[in-house]
Order: sequence, then C-alpha cells, then structure tokens
Amino acid sequence: MRTYKQQDLANMEDSERACFVNCLSGFKSANVIGTRDRHQQNNLAMISSVVHLGSNPPFLGFIMRPQSVTRHTWENIEESGVYTINQVNNEFFQQAHQTSARYPRDTSEFEACGLTPEFADGFHAPHVAESALRIGMQLVEIIPIQHNDTALIVGEVRWVEVKEEAVKNDGFIDIESLGAMTVSGLDGYHSTQRAARLSYAKPGEELQELDVEGQVKDS
Amino acid sequence: MRTYKQQDLANMEDSERACFVNCLSGFKSANVIGTRDRHQQNNLAMISSVVHLGSNPPFLGFIMRPQSVTRHTWENIEESGVYTINQVNNEFFQQAHQTSARYPRDTSEFEACGLTPEFADGFHAPHVAESALRIGMQLVEIIPIQHNDTALIVGEVRWVEVKEEAVKNDGFIDIESLGAMTVSGLDGYHSTQRAARLSYAKPGEELQELDVEGQVKDS
Repeated sequence: MRTYKQQDLANMEDSERACFVNCLSGFKSANVIGTRDRHQQNNLAMISSVVHLGSNPPFLGFIMRPQSVTRHTWENIEESGVYTINQVNNEFFQQAHQTSARYPRDTSEFEACGLTPEFADGFHAPHVAESALRIGMQLVEIIPIQHNDTALIVGEVRWVEVKEEAVKNDGFIDIESLGAMTVSGLDGYHSTQRAARLSYAKPGEELQELDVEGQVKDS
Repeated sequence: MRTYKQQDLANMEDSERACFVNCLSGFKSANVIGTRDRHQQNNLAMISSVVHLGSNPPFLGFIMRPQSVTRHTWENIEESGVYTINQVNNEFFQQAHQTSARYPRDTSEFEACGLTPEFADGFHAPHVAESALRIGMQLVEIIPIQHNDTALIVGEVRWVEVKEEAVKNDGFIDIESLGAMTVSGLDGYHSTQRAARLSYAKPGEELQELDVEGQVKDS
C-alpha cells in the first residue's frame, strides 16, 4: 500500500489531483440532467454525483458548482424549478460525456451531441429519448456547501419512465439489464456484472444470496 | 416504457417504494465507514451514498439519517470529528453488507462481521485491513437536509492508502483493478468491466478513447 498524506495531495498538479480525488469515492452514477430555459432553449449536462436522499418522500440529490461548465443547468433549474434525470446506458455514454464540453448558452447539447429531446405530458424540462430510465424532478431546495463553493440540489421525483420488464415484483429495478453505466474518476465508463442481491442483514443471521427477483437462490 | 406518477409511488407499500426509489439514482459507490467512540469501541457501517464534492480542497460527502441504524456512526463522527472511508471490494462485500444489521452499541461490526480493524499512525478512527483503498477523513460540516430529516456529512481527506500499482501517472486510480464493487438499490452488488476512458470533451472535437493510463488507444 502507498500512503498519500494531505501534503502529498496539496503538492500534486491540479489536473493530477482532480483525477486522483475524483476516483476516491468509488463508482459513481452516470446521468444526464435535462433542463429548459424560458426561451425554450434546451440544455443537457453530464452529472456523476446523483445520490439517493430518501424514498418517502422520494428525494434525489446531486452536487453542482455555480461557476462551472454546468452553470446553464443551474440557472435553468433555479428559473423553472424542474429538471429531468436520465440514466446513461451503454448505447450513448460517449454522447453523454460529450455534453460536458463548454458549449455556448444558445447551443442545445441535445443537438450538438446527437441526443433526442422528448417531453412528458405538460412537463417543462426535456428528457432523453435514448435513456431507458428517466425521471421528472421538482426542485425542493438548493443547499449551499460553503466550504467549497458547491451546492446540493435537492429534488422530489414527480414521475418515472422505465422499461417495464426491468421492474421486479418487489420494486427492484434491474438497471444492469438496461445497460446502465457507472463512472470512475473524471472519465472512466464501466458496464457491470451482478454478483448477487443480498438478503436484509440481521444480527446473528447468515446472509442469503438472492436472484434478481429477490428470491433466495438455490444453493 | 411504463410511467409511474407521483401517486403511483405514494400508493406503493413502504418496502416496494424503498426498493424502487433506491434504484433510481443509478449505480452507487460501495464503502464502509469506520469510527471509534471515546471508550475505544469501534463501529463500521455500510454506506452507498459517498459522493465527490471537490478536489481542491479534497472533499467527500455522504448522506446519513440521525435516527437510522447508522446512528452510532453519526454520534462517533460528531464526537471525534474523524472517520475512515473504506472501499468495498469483491473479497468482502458480504461482510460489508452484514454491517448494515442493527447491532447493539457495544458490538463492534468489525468483529461481528469478520473484518479487521487497523489504525494509521496517530489516527483515532479504525480502517478496514481488507480494503485496498481507505481514506482518513476529518469532519468539516454536517449540513441538515431539513425536508427529509437527513444530513450531508462533509469531510476533508487527511490521508489515502491505496495499492500503488492501481495509481496511474495522470492520477487516475484503476479502482476496477482493486475489485471495487458498485451497488444498485438496497441490496444489489456488481463488479464492473471498463468500456473506456474518454478524452476531455471540447465543442466540435471528436472524443477519443483512452486506455487505463490515459493514452489515446490505437484504433
């Protein structure tokens, strides 16, 4: 094992530190966030920080930096109060990554990157037709993280569109079957292979491996 | 595609809704958090919400609920101000999942689940010997998310221990080579297979696939 102390991190060049520290949290979710401004200009931004906050009410969060390349997304969410979260799969992860380029405000990343905007009935923000799991979100709160000039965007799920065959009887969504990707660091994209679902853990009880339907596997 | 509206989610049974909503964010990081109270009692808790907040200063966050099964972790972090984040790999993901059982305060999840506590020089919180990437963290701030009674725990990286061969020249850590797992929903564990690293995206430039070292792949 090699040890990196605080000073070792401080001594790294910015690009090396960014690459290194972005790998530390482990695998990340891969989503693109769809928004629309009042002039009907669509925007799409790759975000690898979407995180589960709670299921009742159904809340998801993600991290943004107001001055970054994603500032148009930030402004559109503040202005309209709605956005979509679109799961990135193996069929369009390159296009999703390309949305992280610094396009001018009047460019739609949908067009520039070859993705298709669609609209759910009456919902202001566009979602991505190529995504097999997309979510309509209502902004709840923007919580500043003052120590590093970022913020946690907290939203509530308004609707979910997902390929029906991926949803199991117990509510589990087999996102692996949808080709969902996961991200490492700033630029690593990975597909997955399920090891197991595991039973609910209780003290003194042995865990059981479950199949994708949530049933105990034959041993 | 099947559509789930807000009312459809509200009508689900609690366990189904928890299972479903926990899948929506996509793949999650798999880490166990190590803490220690003032009576030298060790604690270890599975957390799938560790997220990158920024690289300079190096900040990581995760989501906790004060009244949940992880309350001992919460209390130890508040009391001591330090904790470790230990990446879960394919050699101990079952033990990591088992730490989510509701053990009494005077039980160490290390012992109960068969994992080995180790201590970095002078650091109060234990890390997991079985982990190939462990991080010493200093608490920066606990930010309440008042709308759903959770909080974002913000911490700064104090040290990192990682298998040296996984760290590439540009700072990228090949966490796949460490056997790092990723989580879907409440109980799905997956290994990964790298599709590609992708070059830094710029408007009007074609993306290039990079190898694990960050070099452009021969086409």
